Formats: sequence, structure tokens, C-alpha cells
Amino acid sequence: MIEDTAAGVRAGLLDPVELTERALDRAREHAGCNAVTHLDAAGARPAAAAATAGPLAGIPLLVKEIIAVQGLPHTCGSRVFAGRVAGADAEVVRRAREAGAVIIGLTHSHEFAYGCTGTSNVAGPCRNPHDASRMTGGSSAGSAAAVAAGIVPVALGTDTAGSVRIPAALCGVVGAVPQRGTLSSDGVFPLARTLDRVGLLTGSVADARYVTAVLAGIDLTGDALSAPRLGVLADPDLLDCAPEVADAYRTALDRLADAGAFVVEVKPPDWRLFTETAFDLQGPEAAAVHDELDAALDDYQPDLRDRLRDAAAVPGWRYVRARSRMSALTADLGRILATVDAVLLPTVPILAPPLDATEASVSGGRRPVRDLLLRNNRPLNVTPFPALSVPLPGSGGLPVGLQLIATGDRAAFAVAEWVERSL
Amino acid sequence: MIEDTAAGVRAGLLDPVELTERALDRAREHAGCNAVTHLDAAGARPAAAAATAGPLAGIPLLVKEIIAVQGLPHTCGSRVFAGRVAGADAEVVRRAREAGAVIIGLTHSHEFAYGCTGTSNVAGPCRNPHDASRMTGGSSAGSAAAVAAGIVPVALGTDTAGSVRIPAALCGVVGAVPQRGTLSSDGVFPLARTLDRVGLLTGSVADARYVTAVLAGIDLTGDALSAPRLGVLADPDLLDCAPEVADAYRTALDRLADAGAFVVEVKPPDWRLFTETAFDLQGPEAAAVHDELDAALDDYQPDLRDRLRDAAAVPGWRYVRARSRMSALTADLGRILATVDAVLLPTVPILAPPLDATEASVSGGRRPVRDLLLRNNRPLNVTPFPALSVPLPGSGGLPVGLQLIATGDRAAFAVAEWVERSL
Repeated sequence: MIEDTAAGVRAGLLDPVELTERALDRAREHAGCNAVTHLDAAGARPAAAAATAGPLAGIPLLVKEIIAVQGLPHTCGSRVFAGRVAGADAEVVRRAREAGAVIIGLTHSHEFAYGCTGTSNVAGPCRNPHDASRMTGGSSAGSAAAVAAGIVPVALGTDTAGSVRIPAALCGVVGAVPQRGTLSSDGVFPLARTLDRVGLLTGSVADARYVTAVLAGIDLTGDALSAPRLGVLADPDLLDCAPEVADAYRTALDRLADAGAFVVEVKPPDWRLFTETAFDLQGPEAAAVHDELDAALDDYQPDLRDRLRDAAAVPGWRYVRARSRMSALTADLGRILATVDAVLLPTVPILAPPLDATEASVSGGRRPVRDLLLRNNRPLNVTPFPALSVPLPGSGGLPVGLQLIATGDRAAFAVAEWVERSL
Repeated sequence: MIEDTAAGVRAGLLDPVELTERALDRAREHAGCNAVTHLDAAGARPAAAAATAGPLAGIPLLVKEIIAVQGLPHTCGSRVFAGRVAGADAEVVRRAREAGAVIIGLTHSHEFAYGCTGTSNVAGPCRNPHDASRMTGGSSAGSAAAVAAGIVPVALGTDTAGSVRIPAALCGVVGAVPQRGTLSSDGVFPLARTLDRVGLLTGSVADARYVTAVLAGIDLTGDALSAPRLGVLADPDLLDCAPEVADAYRTALDRLADAGAFVVEVKPPDWRLFTETAFDLQGPEAAAVHDELDAALDDYQPDLRDRLRDAAAVPGWRYVRARSRMSALTADLGRILATVDAVLLPTVPILAPPLDATEASVSGGRRPVRDLLLRNNRPLNVTPFPALSVPLPGSGGLPVGLQLIATGDRAAFAVAEWVERSL
């Protein structure tokens, strides 16, 4: 779709200024969502007029506010950076512009991308387009909500422990986290450098694949799959979901099998060790970044204060141990991925909770919302493997996400496209 | 000297068995020093009989007990590893054997190399050959003492924060810490992997250069220097010494100038930042290693217990910050080193203290012995640069060490040989 739109612009069949005006209008219509924290109509219009060439010619784009866009605010959703303006484009933004994309503004990030609910930001919480009383998930809250609301066909996000996949699942869009290194993190305000990745929120897997290939400068086209081998992680902890999610997941697996997939159970690695390792890496790296800012704790949102305090208390030896475990954990997951085309699991085990919810129910009982949102996502970033969250149909009013993990970008996108087509 | 001895052995002019017997005899004569914690006469004799070829043909060698020697105890001087035997040679030991060296035993290490005094070991303290009531310094205590006592011409040590240079200075031998990566650390029980290096204790710079070249498989011969440019670090903190050390240092600088060196003052980098960085790297890495051992704190010597407890308390964010500072600090020191052939400073600001001393005097007052021993040594290991400690003459009964730091091994050995010759 994005590929076709850009081709239409290049051929003179579509007017890039009109595409941008339509996106700006939609952003204003959906202002109540709080997905767009800075709309740059003044910059977008002349950019659109000039955006007649390139693989993303005329495509309106929104950028998560922790990713630097020259001349636009770079507050990272925080009072700590009030008044800060980006002096240069992040590498991924530079490439998007070079490819003809038109940046129309910035999207809501959970403050400093350090939270998974999308509720903490100097601009207030981000609201789910499917139900404004519910959260979007985060931290790439606004990017997922903006795509879900139809403001733009693609938005840039980042993912350190699920920050692209979680809001993709709760907002019903595709969230793509390409493998480590595919998309540059230069110019992205860091959360935890070892785990941070740039990712995309889009309306379809094809769009995510196409834009990833453009921004990475790589070829991601491949043979269409006919009968992929899909591994279902047989871990009761990972499958402990709200009934709506469990139903949607089981239904999806049945449909995929009907469509020709070999759905097999695979023994999962020790997710608890992955989670602990990710936790021990993230806290010290985040605390080191924020120590350098010399900011007062009071300038952060209350949840960030607690999180930074906890992060600063993680002992160094646990960080060292976590780093030394990364390659073994990657090998553990790699051995499982080698037996299938992709591994499947529910992205998030619950539907989008109310904005102020701190607990939610799964079949095992009440659990903290944060733990549930992160549970199936955090482990990935300890490894370099790519993952996508693809929306599942038929779960009533609120979306459900299906997560796929594969050994490389080409396989991940190919399987995800097959899955999307088959559902 | 070692080069000549090995040539004599290869030519059949010297009997390697006789060389080994002489070393074994000397080790027994000096047993009171506690330098050799395991003498392997049974293994050394047949090895000597076969050691008629190679660049180290017939050279008796002692190995610090944290470096694995196949079939010999690998207790690291600790009750924690009581009864442990090495299953394979460390890489540096394998290369030494391959070159014809004859391993006659293991030397005293401060427990797990985690101390700079050489006083903590399940076998008791190591004693200085110049005065048995005084410490050798550490952690490569026995390797320095064994060379000083004339047991062997060369012994292997390790240096994480000064562990080769400190005992070299206090025992009056050459301590060489080649640049990071020159000598393999494979098979060496780690203290802090980022900072650990294998080094040598020898009677002369020429011997250190020769053995380093053999064990690294590199060529370290170079043009003889005539008028090196020597940088004196103009930092009052680094030069705050006991009067005997200050005198020996000043006298040495005068002699070096008389011999033709250009002795210039250079502005030192921020050693306090180096020290803090080294500390923040060492603690978490050491604590992570020892956490894996699952040992009871009571099995360690009392000073190790305190050190491990303190190390485990260093927060992760400080470790992350320290890692991120390493390259800038290396650049800081590199900029200074680029203006001279080597930088000079006293290795240790005091003479060997009594075994039970916890404080010592410098002109600035009483200071903890540990702080004084580490002060001028710890900063180096944050960088990849090589350093040597060369004994200074004329300081009464107890030795003084002069430390040289250079940008690379070839320069470091060339300057150190020129200095040794000129003194």
C-alpha cells in the first residue's frame, strides 16, 4: 500500500501535498487521543510539495518523540527536557526524508520510553483509538495510536522491552521490531543501549517490510511461503491470558493450521532467566543515562521516579552477569528458532486496560498490568532476533496481537505476511 | 640473559636438568619467603630432560597460582578452591612449555589475586626476600619474590590494578605488563576481565622483552634509543612519596637527563577519574565471578570478605558509566603519550611496609597502605597501554620501582631498556 502510494506520487497520479493535508486533518480530528504531541504543519507542507521522488515519495510519517527530528522539540515526553529542540535528524529520520517521506510531527512516548502503558507524559496519557478510556500500551503509544486512527500509514517507534509490540497489540496495528542493527539507533534518546531497537508501526506487514527495507537499505523481498512451520511455545506461564485473548489466539492457530501451516509445540527456553537478564541490563543502563542528565527526580512523572530509583539500585555484579549470559540465551532461543520458520505467542495476554488500571485479570488471577504487558515481550531484546506483532481478528471491540519471532528479518516478514494473509 | 641461557641449552653447553635442579634447590633454600606455594620437582625433572629445543629451552619457570598448569593445584591461594586441580594449561603456559620452558611450580598469589599486599593466602603471607618481616606487595607476590630471590629468571604474573608492578617495585625486580591482548588470559582465573592482563616478573628488561615476544609470538626487537623523550607527570598527588622513594626518583631523573634523555613535565590526565572508573569496573566484575562460585564468605580470608561485600554493593549504573568512559580516558592518556616516548612515575610511593602494616607515611601524612600501593598503578588498566616497573638503584636496603607507560609494547620495552642501561 505504501509502496503503491509512493509509486502513485512519483507518477504524478497522487498529490503529496494532498496526502499530507489529509494526514494533518486526521491528526486534528483525533487530537483527543493525544497520539500526536507535536504537529508540524508548517514544516510538513513545503516538505510535501518537494516530496515527489524516492521509495517513500509523499508518504506522511510520524516519529516517536524520543527520536530526533531536526528543528522539532526533543523533550522525550518529559519536563526534564522542557524546551529542548533537536539539532540534527536521527539517522533513521534522515533516511526517511531522503526516501521522500514527509514528517508531519511527533508522537506520544511514555516519558523517556521508560514505561509500557503510554500513560506518563508531560502532555498527559495517550488514549486508545478503539476506546478513549483505555490505554494504548507503550512506550511507542502515539505511533501505534496514530496508525490505528488512520492518521499516517507508518510511524517510527522504539522497542527496548516491548515498546513497539505492546501498543501495536493493544491498538490493533502491526508492530515490527527488526533484528538488532537493521535500523540505526543513532539520534535516538537511549533507554538501555544494549536492548534498544528502532521499529515500525504500520497497518500491514507488507508496509512494515517495505519501509524497513527502505530505511535499512536492504532487500527484504523473498519467496512467498506456502506451508510454514510455526512453533507454539508450550509454556503455561506465557499462555496464561485473559479469556478473550486465549480465544483469539486459539482461533488464530486453528485458522493457520487450516491454511496449511504445520503448527508444532516447541519447548520454550527459560523465559524467567531471559526476563531477569533483560531487567538487570535495562536498569543500570537506564540509570546511567539519567544520572548524566543531572535532573531532579521531582521533574519526572511519579512512575519514572520509582523506576529510576529501582534501576539505580541494581548491583553492578548482576549487570555483569546479565551481559555474560546474553550469548547463551541467544543460543537457547536460536536452537528453538532453527527448528521452525517462526515461534508464535500472544503479544500481550490482556485487552487494553482502563487508563488508570494497575492490575488486570488472566486465568491465573489478578496481576500487575505492567508485568502482563511486558511478560511476553521483554525476553526478545536480550537476543538479536526480530519480532512482529500482527493484529488478530474477531476479538470484539478491542484488539489482540499475535507475536512472531524468527531468526532473521527476511524470515520474520515472510512468515508474518503469510500469517496476515491466512487469518 | 634468558636468551643466552636458552641458546646454551640448545647448543648442549648447558644442562637443562642442572638448571632445573639449581632452581629447585634455591626454591627450597628460600622456602621461608613463601614465594613458591607448590614445587613440582617430580614434574619438572622429566620436563627438563626433554627441554633441549625452543627459544626458552631449559629455562626454569614459575607460574602464579591463579594461572592454570595442567595437573597442578589450581586453588588460587584460597580455601574456596581447596583440592582443585587444573585440567588444562592456560594458553600462556602452553606456549611457554612449547618454547622449552620448564615449569617448576606455582607462586603465591594474594587470594584470588584480589589484593595488593601479598599477605592473604591459605598458605600464609608472602615475605619480602630483602626483609622477611616486610610484605612483597601483590597480588603476584610469589612471582616477584621468586625472581628477586634468584629462584627463577622469569615468573608469570597477572595485573588488574598493579598486581605485577607493585610486587616488582617492592621486591626490586622488573615487572612487565604488556599492552592489552599481547599475552592471552585464557586459562587465568579472572579477577575483572576488562582489566586483567598477564605479565612477567624478570631480572632485567631484556629478559622481559624476550619472553614477552616468545609467549606472544611477536617481534619486539627495535632500534636502540639514543635520546628518549621522557614525560614526568606533574601531579603532586602522584609524587607524594616517602622520602626514600622521592630521593630515588629524583636521582633517577637526574641520571636519565645526564645520560641524554629529554625529561619534560607533562600535564597528567585526571587520575581520580581513572581510579574511580577502574574501581567501578573491578568491583562488579569480581563480584560476578565470585557469585558464580556459590562459596561461603567464611571460606575467604577476612580482607577478601570485606572486599567482596563492597564489590557487590557497587551499583550497576556506575559500572555502565565506567565502561562508557573507558575510550575517552584512553584518548586522554593517549594524547599525553603521543608527545613523549614514555611517561614516568614512581611505581609505589613507599618502601615495602611491615607485613601487618595497614598505614604508611608519605610526605602528605599517614595513608592506608592499600591506597598507596594501588595509587599510581590502578589507572593504567582502564587503558590498553603497556607499562613496566624497573628497579631503581641506591635506595638503601629496600627497593624502589620506576614505572614507565608507553603507547605500545615495542616503545615500552625500548625505553625501559634504555632507562635500565642508563641508571
